[in-house]
Amino acid sequence: MSNVQAVEAKPRERVAMNGVDTPRLFATLDAVKAQPELAAFQFRATNTWISGTHSRSRIEAFSGANGEHRHTGNIQFDADHPAVLVGADHAPTPVEFLLHAIAACITSGIGNIAAARGVRLSEVESTVEGDIDLRGILGLSKDVRNGYRELRVHFRVKGDAPPETLQAIVAQSKARSAVFDVLTNGTTVNVTADCATA
Amino acid sequence: MSNVQAVEAKPRERVAMNGVDTPRLFATLDAVKAQPELAAFQFRATNTWISGTHSRSRIEAFSGANGEHRHTGNIQFDADHPAVLVGADHAPTPVEFLLHAIAACITSGIGNIAAARGVRLSEVESTVEGDIDLRGILGLSKDVRNGYRELRVHFRVKGDAPPETLQAIVAQSKARSAVFDVLTNGTTVNVTADCATA
Repeated sequence: MSNVQAVEAKPRERVAMNGVDTPRLFATLDAVKAQPELAAFQFRATNTWISGTHSRSRIEAFSGANGEHRHTGNIQFDADHPAVLVGADHAPTPVEFLLHAIAACITSGIGNIAAARGVRLSEVESTVEGDIDLRGILGLSKDVRNGYRELRVHFRVKGDAPPETLQAIVAQSKARSAVFDVLTNGTTVNVTADCATA
Repeated sequence: MSNVQAVEAKPRERVAMNGVDTPRLFATLDAVKAQPELAAFQFRATNTWISGTHSRSRIEAFSGANGEHRHTGNIQFDADHPAVLVGADHAPTPVEFLLHAIAACITSGIGNIAAARGVRLSEVESTVEGDIDLRGILGLSKDVRNGYRELRVHFRVKGDAPPETLQAIVAQSKARSAVFDVLTNGTTVNVTADCATA
């Protein structure tokens, strides 16, 4: 979800569009405004190593809005390294899921914000590129970081509004994207382990 | 892949184990040492909006090691918002894919580093939790960030080595994780858009 509070030139049409239940979106905003504790969410995943660089995550349950919830859609995702990186290529690499996350996050915001602003979308497509020098993770250079040097996300958006209105929707979605915030500003990541000889 | 260059107390056994082709892993390291340009990789994704907050990414091609490559495993991944966030729950949310990425990245490193150090693993499991206050993305508070406040990754590792050796493998994998670097330090993310009335 994304900010739909901004002042708009066009009168707000609170009708469902773009597959977004816009009235319920505004009702949700009002509910959280009245009860801020509804906004405290915890997302979770479990991961099991399979072999080599291949592992499988399950993304099943999360809490928020004062309750526990379970996903009903696809919840199982693999990751692996490709052959050129000595893996078996059962699935994309972990770093590629960051590309999926940023594209999907900004896209979902575009859907919501367009609906909130009464703009009907006909197409939203994006490409993401990430440049990485693997000498970092290979431990071959102290001057090279482990992660991406840069990501580029390019959108192609079509809708029943002037191009500048569509640009403003993309800009607002970026400004309210949870994944954009984490990928650009970073966050605290605590890693712990229980280890046993077996 | 992760750093296998560190000095080790245990003599290195360059035999395949844990599903890792250890000799080829070391050969890859030697190749990149000799030709650093082989380490320049670019990962890519394309995403298409479907409806509402539902979109689909394809992670097909990438470049690196002086060539173009295509994944052979599963390459298509959806994302959506759950019902409680006014979505249709076709798949997990974009922010949950960050949890998959961090768990899978450190796990693949554990597999590689253990093999490089001659440690046979029997189990690697992890849980990831991410705390997020959705007042940020909902635009309801200027004091709340959009992204996760904190992530916690907890591993359970079993292998044929003392617990402290296994702990050191987890620590080395974290120290060389591309996803850990991006999620903790952030990176540059450029977002652009072509917009058209249609």
